[in-house]
Amino acid sequence: MSEIKSFEVSDPVNHSLKGFALANPSLTLVEEEKILFRKTDKSKVGLIAGGGCGHEPTHAGFVGHGALSAAVCGEIFASPSTKQILHAIQLVAENSSSVLLIVKNYTGDVLHFGLSAERARALGIDCRVVVVGDDVAVGREKGGMVGRRALAGTVLVHKITGAFAEKYSDKYGLEGAEKVAHIVNDNLVSINSSLDHCKVPGRKYETELSSKQMELGMGIHNEPGVHVLEPIPPTEELIEKYMLPKMLDPSDKDRHFLDFNKNDEVVLLIDNLGGVSNFMITAIASVTVELLKKNYGITPVQVIAGTVMTSFNGNGFGITLLNASGASKQLQNDFEEVNSVLDLLNAPTDAPGWPVKSTPGDKGPSVNTEILEKEVKVKDAGAYDYDTFAKWMKAGAEAVIKAEPHITSLDNKVGDGDCGYTLVAGVKGITENLDKLSRKSLSEAIAQISDFIESSMGGTSGGLYSILISGFSHGLIQVCDNEKTEVTPEITSKAFDIALETLYKYTKARPGASTMIDALEPFIKEFSSTKDFNKAVAAAEKGAKSTAGTEAKFGRASYVGDSSDFEDPGAVGLVEFMKGVQSAYK
Amino acid sequence: MSEIKSFEVSDPVNHSLKGFALANPSLTLVEEEKILFRKTDKSKVGLIAGGGCGHEPTHAGFVGHGALSAAVCGEIFASPSTKQILHAIQLVAENSSSVLLIVKNYTGDVLHFGLSAERARALGIDCRVVVVGDDVAVGREKGGMVGRRALAGTVLVHKITGAFAEKYSDKYGLEGAEKVAHIVNDNLVSINSSLDHCKVPGRKYETELSSKQMELGMGIHNEPGVHVLEPIPPTEELIEKYMLPKMLDPSDKDRHFLDFNKNDEVVLLIDNLGGVSNFMITAIASVTVELLKKNYGITPVQVIAGTVMTSFNGNGFGITLLNASGASKQLQNDFEEVNSVLDLLNAPTDAPGWPVKSTPGDKGPSVNTEILEKEVKVKDAGAYDYDTFAKWMKAGAEAVIKAEPHITSLDNKVGDGDCGYTLVAGVKGITENLDKLSRKSLSEAIAQISDFIESSMGGTSGGLYSILISGFSHGLIQVCDNEKTEVTPEITSKAFDIALETLYKYTKARPGASTMIDALEPFIKEFSSTKDFNKAVAAAEKGAKSTAGTEAKFGRASYVGDSSDFEDPGAVGLVEFMKGVQSAYK
Repeated sequence: MSEIKSFEVSDPVNHSLKGFALANPSLTLVEEEKILFRKTDKSKVGLIAGGGCGHEPTHAGFVGHGALSAAVCGEIFASPSTKQILHAIQLVAENSSSVLLIVKNYTGDVLHFGLSAERARALGIDCRVVVVGDDVAVGREKGGMVGRRALAGTVLVHKITGAFAEKYSDKYGLEGAEKVAHIVNDNLVSINSSLDHCKVPGRKYETELSSKQMELGMGIHNEPGVHVLEPIPPTEELIEKYMLPKMLDPSDKDRHFLDFNKNDEVVLLIDNLGGVSNFMITAIASVTVELLKKNYGITPVQVIAGTVMTSFNGNGFGITLLNASGASKQLQNDFEEVNSVLDLLNAPTDAPGWPVKSTPGDKGPSVNTEILEKEVKVKDAGAYDYDTFAKWMKAGAEAVIKAEPHITSLDNKVGDGDCGYTLVAGVKGITENLDKLSRKSLSEAIAQISDFIESSMGGTSGGLYSILISGFSHGLIQVCDNEKTEVTPEITSKAFDIALETLYKYTKARPGASTMIDALEPFIKEFSSTKDFNKAVAAAEKGAKSTAGTEAKFGRASYVGDSSDFEDPGAVGLVEFMKGVQSAYK
Repeated sequence: MSEIKSFEVSDPVNHSLKGFALANPSLTLVEEEKILFRKTDKSKVGLIAGGGCGHEPTHAGFVGHGALSAAVCGEIFASPSTKQILHAIQLVAENSSSVLLIVKNYTGDVLHFGLSAERARALGIDCRVVVVGDDVAVGREKGGMVGRRALAGTVLVHKITGAFAEKYSDKYGLEGAEKVAHIVNDNLVSINSSLDHCKVPGRKYETELSSKQMELGMGIHNEPGVHVLEPIPPTEELIEKYMLPKMLDPSDKDRHFLDFNKNDEVVLLIDNLGGVSNFMITAIASVTVELLKKNYGITPVQVIAGTVMTSFNGNGFGITLLNASGASKQLQNDFEEVNSVLDLLNAPTDAPGWPVKSTPGDKGPSVNTEILEKEVKVKDAGAYDYDTFAKWMKAGAEAVIKAEPHITSLDNKVGDGDCGYTLVAGVKGITENLDKLSRKSLSEAIAQISDFIESSMGGTSGGLYSILISGFSHGLIQVCDNEKTEVTPEITSKAFDIALETLYKYTKARPGASTMIDALEPFIKEFSSTKDFNKAVAAAEKGAKSTAGTEAKFGRASYVGDSSDFEDPGAVGLVEFMKGVQSAYK
């Protein structure tokens, strides 16, 4: 893909940071130093992270109570300067006991944060640095001296260390927080996969990937990964054959960074690199859970699915696994108060980028399955002769089926050609289910037909007919005294009126708008005044013809309106049904 | 753009819903009916929303305490069936006093939710429907009978009505909640803009837009908007000239749905249609705030920037304005307890899709500007002769500048060709700032040079040199008794040792890795043992030459490693600097 469309604003980094601060007024933005910070308690260890922009919500999104105290941002994909970082340290140090810098393992970041820590210590600030690296894409051989890159696992280090510092700073201080960060990092593995390089604002889009290729293990700055896959595998195969084994296969000596045992509690994080839909991210989470169970016997105790470490709107995602059992065991050794890393992971925070709102302990309400199984019945009203009624329905259906080619040809001229088929599906929905109808009351039989119509026709016209028919059923209930009341033309006409009234609550179409209402309203009005079915059908037929030569206002062409020399196919279909019933009615 | 890469999984809707439920265990998923629900208090009005999939986090993401009670989902871009909706109503009705359906104004949704409400009422459930429409793209003329489409403003209706139902159900019941939903909707205007149609999972990608076109006012199902823009305007212009006037220009009679007065409190929501980076979304928020101020005198009291109503990973965004003053006034009329719509908007919720974590009342800590202005000084240590030192620096710089063509030609063979320029920038950073150096102590002068080097060189090599030099400054502080202590070769050598130790904490490069350390370490070791500058420079020169013919392990080619028959240009540059100093040293 050689071209890509993107929004571009002037001075993007400053605008982006300002907008973030506007949306998060509990954080203070120091514009000239690109620092976002919150107030830390004087007694707590303050946590600072940072790095180049382009990974939002990382890092500023993880500033919050029980998380980071500040984020210090560089330009796009570039480390902040030592001056910026040192100022962030000094601002945080004012309101905390000491400062821990959590740094992603990228050369520039490691150097600048390291240098700043050196200077801060020279100024008498108690300051340490933890470098995070969770990516397995770069194996030992290639990454040996530089180490693993940092991916989405970083935010779990922020969150867990932040919760620890919030709770246990008094007792364990900076050294404790530093140890926790190391423990979390040591129990993380991650890998990304991208369909393309990300587009960097203000820069020309460049990619070496063809339209048939994707990159397994791409970094968050478009860095090369493990290798290029061609053709692009289905997503399930990508996860099963390529991504999970890189993290979990103990025989891959170059990438076996972490042991997982069958009974280990594991946290699964699916990270959106920015350009994948939320819809697909949770689908990927679900697929990954299935594959972890199937191939590794691992059932994650917690699933996190969200957008935490992006490369702008990168068309990719990452999988991170935290071995919670391993981390908890190490934490228990060092800190008697800490029982499980999950408690820290799920401690409350107001960090705007943290995507978790409910925790493994939460449980949704149980489902009353009776409701789902129970057939929905309406009140019985109106005694009727099932055999006659069934005969009418069959005759109406036959007429519609016979008229389908004509309706379709009409609809090919004014609509999208499916009106005839939809109506046939609808009448078949009635005739194929006739033997299921209640013999006891017409109100119930009609309500059942409303259901059949809806599922057999579907779409807008199915919904409209279903509402109309349901309204007719309700009308019967209102008009009849009880289920023994005989359904007379008088009762039918009153129920028809109520049905039309109901329908009109849900559509603004009226006669003349080239819909089936062109036929329906004249039919009901005529029947209401004369109680004569034949006259009513004649009125319907006249109504259907009345719109030839006008513009359709509804249906598929809703906003646009097609000019038409023809009657509305939906109205024609309804008239055909009526005429079919009429033929059996005589 | 005729092709687009996307992740595709089997059975995407069910996988997506399952994944969402896994990540949000406080919600219960009824798989067969695609319902996600939570437990509502028996005394509260339960709120249900729903519609086709593809707008995530809408709708399930807004199920939570103080928000929706349930979401019922259809297939992709298709309304759920009446059966599904009715079951959702029944499940919610079990645990609530009554049920309000909040429906986006799309024909299928309006019909199916309407029909379900009819049936629910027939079952004795107190149930009402509110239809939301906030889009101004479809003006009165085109949208007249169908009304406005629903965009991101919908989630403000969910949130505010949900908070109201949570607090005031006892007093105002279903009717009250219905009224609140109407009031919010009546005070909303929205418009979207998209660079392209969104890619629908499982379907072929289709768009009528060329690579030079975008659509102003595109709907959330790829529906046409106001018109196509060609060429694509800069984003500021798109917002200023096209989007804001459609919502705010009272002379546009077709689209003037809502009045805004200068002093009105306004909430601004910037919605990511799914495929725009978080980085750019907050930048757009900031730009929009500037333009609202500049052109309309409107300063939003609250800015919300996030991903709330998507069309999969649509490459577009929406702007929604809520006239909070107008809404508050209407609410005050009907509900004496409600003072401001902002209180309801910002009432707590655990709905996973709600993007707000801090509210207009929150305030970040104030900035201690002294910290930002204060020059960072290190402890004074080591008396030195400024003039001699300055002469050495100038001589070293001149030598590097003279050698630049050679260094560049070397780097063109083994690196990316910028090593020479970077070193020149570094030495100029020293010489151009010589007159700013502290005359009082070498430790301070060296710390200042570390700063100059960092800002003039930048990047990784700037960081490394800066750390090295900063380490030398700290070394002097440790070795010298005070600022009067004369800097001898003995002291210099000890400080050099400490500098190297410091550097080695931040890089794993060692001699032989084709970096400047090839020259640096031999220099420091030789000087340490002999205190002889000339011998040390000779050792450095030997070290720089030692790696010709080996592979580079660091620098730009970090993971890959280029084979090289040449010495490292960085090491050569350092030797040139030393030799320059040497020429002045004699």
